[in-house]
Amino acid sequence: MSTFPSDIEIAQNATLQHIRKIAEKINIQEDDLEYYGKYKAKLPLELQSENPKGKLILVSAMSPTKYGEGKTTMSIGLTDGLNYIGRKAIGVLREPSLGPVFGLKGGAAGGGYAQVVPMEDINLHFTGDFSAIEKANNLLSAVIDNNLQNPKFSLNLDPKSIAWKRVMDMNDRSLRQIIIGVGAKSNGTMREDGFNITPASEVMAILCLSKDLEDLKFRLGNIFVGKTLDGKAIFARDLKVVGAMAVLLKDALKPNLVQTLEENPVILHGGPFASIAQGTNTVIATKMGLSLGDYVVTEAGFGADLGAEKFFHIKCGQSGLKPDAVVLVATIRAIKHHAGLSSEDFKTENVAAIEKGFCNLEKHIENIQKFGINPVVSINAFPDDTQAEYDKLKSLCLAKGVTAIVSTAFVDGGKGSAKLAEKVIEEINKGEANYKPLYQKEDSIEHKINTVAKGIYGANSVEFSPKSKSQLKMINDLGFNDFSICMAKTPASFSDNEKLIGRPTNFIITVREFEIASGAGFIVPLLGDVMRMPGLPSIPNAERIDIDNNGKISGLS
Amino acid sequence: MSTFPSDIEIAQNATLQHIRKIAEKINIQEDDLEYYGKYKAKLPLELQSENPKGKLILVSAMSPTKYGEGKTTMSIGLTDGLNYIGRKAIGVLREPSLGPVFGLKGGAAGGGYAQVVPMEDINLHFTGDFSAIEKANNLLSAVIDNNLQNPKFSLNLDPKSIAWKRVMDMNDRSLRQIIIGVGAKSNGTMREDGFNITPASEVMAILCLSKDLEDLKFRLGNIFVGKTLDGKAIFARDLKVVGAMAVLLKDALKPNLVQTLEENPVILHGGPFASIAQGTNTVIATKMGLSLGDYVVTEAGFGADLGAEKFFHIKCGQSGLKPDAVVLVATIRAIKHHAGLSSEDFKTENVAAIEKGFCNLEKHIENIQKFGINPVVSINAFPDDTQAEYDKLKSLCLAKGVTAIVSTAFVDGGKGSAKLAEKVIEEINKGEANYKPLYQKEDSIEHKINTVAKGIYGANSVEFSPKSKSQLKMINDLGFNDFSICMAKTPASFSDNEKLIGRPTNFIITVREFEIASGAGFIVPLLGDVMRMPGLPSIPNAERIDIDNNGKISGLS
Repeated sequence: MSTFPSDIEIAQNATLQHIRKIAEKINIQEDDLEYYGKYKAKLPLELQSENPKGKLILVSAMSPTKYGEGKTTMSIGLTDGLNYIGRKAIGVLREPSLGPVFGLKGGAAGGGYAQVVPMEDINLHFTGDFSAIEKANNLLSAVIDNNLQNPKFSLNLDPKSIAWKRVMDMNDRSLRQIIIGVGAKSNGTMREDGFNITPASEVMAILCLSKDLEDLKFRLGNIFVGKTLDGKAIFARDLKVVGAMAVLLKDALKPNLVQTLEENPVILHGGPFASIAQGTNTVIATKMGLSLGDYVVTEAGFGADLGAEKFFHIKCGQSGLKPDAVVLVATIRAIKHHAGLSSEDFKTENVAAIEKGFCNLEKHIENIQKFGINPVVSINAFPDDTQAEYDKLKSLCLAKGVTAIVSTAFVDGGKGSAKLAEKVIEEINKGEANYKPLYQKEDSIEHKINTVAKGIYGANSVEFSPKSKSQLKMINDLGFNDFSICMAKTPASFSDNEKLIGRPTNFIITVREFEIASGAGFIVPLLGDVMRMPGLPSIPNAERIDIDNNGKISGLS
Repeated sequence: MSTFPSDIEIAQNATLQHIRKIAEKINIQEDDLEYYGKYKAKLPLELQSENPKGKLILVSAMSPTKYGEGKTTMSIGLTDGLNYIGRKAIGVLREPSLGPVFGLKGGAAGGGYAQVVPMEDINLHFTGDFSAIEKANNLLSAVIDNNLQNPKFSLNLDPKSIAWKRVMDMNDRSLRQIIIGVGAKSNGTMREDGFNITPASEVMAILCLSKDLEDLKFRLGNIFVGKTLDGKAIFARDLKVVGAMAVLLKDALKPNLVQTLEENPVILHGGPFASIAQGTNTVIATKMGLSLGDYVVTEAGFGADLGAEKFFHIKCGQSGLKPDAVVLVATIRAIKHHAGLSSEDFKTENVAAIEKGFCNLEKHIENIQKFGINPVVSINAFPDDTQAEYDKLKSLCLAKGVTAIVSTAFVDGGKGSAKLAEKVIEEINKGEANYKPLYQKEDSIEHKINTVAKGIYGANSVEFSPKSKSQLKMINDLGFNDFSICMAKTPASFSDNEKLIGRPTNFIITVREFEIASGAGFIVPLLGDVMRMPGLPSIPNAERIDIDNNGKISGLS
């Protein structure tokens, strides 16, 4: 048996086109490109048209397992598949975060023959967007603490009220909860603070939701910082730091063009996590893709309970975008996982387990249907899958009115997703997608949380911790009731307990606390014990990553 | 009276050449350029030759004041001046740090008509080098704390012994001294830590001193982390994180090409501060400049007591580079400051003050002469200077055997530094520069500190705090005695007390504590109350920085 090459081997052996050539395919002039080396370029905001004509395809997934369901692989494969069947399609996806590269996950640029390249650059600093977001976030923090330090110019901020955290794009659990300003008076005011991971920063959310530079500045100004000692709300604009934050973000606001292994255009822009943030690439990039191509494939991971729900309520809610089709990624092994099997049993054919574990995918299908769109299921093929398992899964899907199609994009690239692409086009041509939100702006925050927890997760009820109750009162007092909610929850389960696999019932969702993102226009309920700063595993992937003296990298998965 | 335009106005009105055109001037092929937009490019390490033929001109300065002496302006002006008189000269300088941009200082890309452009990009994220350094530094921190967290894979590190700090390129005093790992067990081991500013990171020092990727990895591996509970020294290599750190630095290791307003080539690379780090651009960039041009102008700020001393002992010591000429920047107003005048008196002609304040410059001249090189003084012209003051300063210099030349590069660009350029060429052609270090590798750390403190600063003696004494013992036990020293001291005075202006005598230098940089190959004595993480002023420059809806930036000085 020959060994299938690793992702990085495939990427390193690929012959890349100069990014100028990729840009040509979607009618972008060379002079509009801001090169970052030969294979990456930033695109000017002007390429975004007012009313773009392209069709929007949202890729989401069943509840993911630690083995990886290949959402990005499927998104890239579908982009290649659409081009393979002669359509002008552009992938518009998130940028990977550096933190997980050194943790468990490794890279996030697709896999096998469905990758975006240059894979190494994309997984590392790329064009510096994450770093710019981090700096803008932390400049606000430095200015907040500087304001506490200088009584003469002080806004009279109550140090205990400060809601703004620092961020770092690193899996670093030791920074979750920290005491700053220790030591001499010149070291600042001592107070509790913490770092979130950069993809969880509100600045990231703002960048992803902004229409343009003006909107970006307006939103940055609306960031809630904390309260004065006499109870007045203080926003970033009160600290006169909005201009400087926007200057730091001027390039990050521009989408990035790269290519798939099949030389099709992909725009990567913005990278909020779907578990602890709103999860999808920038509105600007999506609109730009819809302006430049006939079809845009975009992704909202992790499970659709998180990614798709937020895509609908937050991204569609704020931007007016509406998907024309939804693809749900499933794998035979994830279905088996949700049937309660452990990984050593994945290799054995088990049709009964498909029947049992389908409940997870089923609930996701029902959820997408609730939003007014009938999804297509894309089964990401793995070597141990059997035809009988595929047949069972397909018939289960069909019983829900949904077509399931096997994609071999990992092994075959676009050709392997050609059938899926045909089916997606067929769905779009039906014109039946009719997105509608499950909650309205005017609904209370509690109502919004209940709607998602019961309607999407299948919970019996929602419990609010004492802390979250008092925060809820403050949120109402601040007039933030109109905001969307951006749930932070484990992606491993519909519930807030990662151990409840499949389609759990009779469970309670616990709102532990809230984070406020008034510039982004949402409230983040933290459910269960979810953390907005991950940690490294016992043996971090960092140990496997290396570069030889000739500059060749290994260990980026 | 017409108003002289601001630095940013001049930079924004400049017509830039495509960086390809600048590269052509020094015979770099387009295919070798890695573009970052149209006006910045990274250069491949292969452009560095084994034994470069160019002549090296070091620009340093008298003790700086808060008004700014224009070292970078003079360095860029001299580069333009050399080109103006028909020489093939390249500026090789440091990259600015973001922290001070939002603090007091504003930008650091020169001033007036002696600037490097694109000024805004250079002062902001530039090509991401600082960010890469920050990430590599903080990855090591995360891995250290992760090791403490996982008993099974633990190196048995003593949390109290950890010498490695996190860094952030931000003036953020609240992060100087912090407690990390607060809260739940899953939040890591509680211990004291602190952030230095990124230009003070040992990773920055290592990047600046490395010959190539192999050397970079070797040095990263040699970073001292702390000790095990039973007293064994632990290095970064023991944490298996060297490969991942090097991967993060792969692009940062490549020098960056930009241009002056007069379209002359400038390489910017690396950015350690001279007050709290070794202060000069990378060895790779200097050697590359010497390979590509006949003359390289490089800078070692702040005062020559810090910048030039470290340039000699650390950079020359490790790389074998030797300057062929040294230029000391002086201003009439700095001379007046060191005579004890306050700024409101600077506008009045005061020849006596020149005589009195010269003592500061005089000591710097003597110091450079001790290293075996007779400097040229460059007087950076300001509008209120008078001819009588210039004449006095020139004659005082001449009495020390040194020629002083007025440069009007700020107003006139290269033409304003043509005379200075002629004089520098004359000095080089004499071939009398004969650099020799003041201390030897084998000398004890105490001896090295005493040599610099007495010989360069003019101190009577050196006092070691109890903490520094016990650290000194550890440094000796670790076998780090051979290392250079990299003094961290206020640049405002020869002493460690910023209030002692002029040429102080009868003072004591206090070594408060040490930081170890065994990968960089030096020990950092912290003198007086110097901090390696600055703070923001009461009204930070961040408040003045803005960007309009068309993307035009203001307030970057």
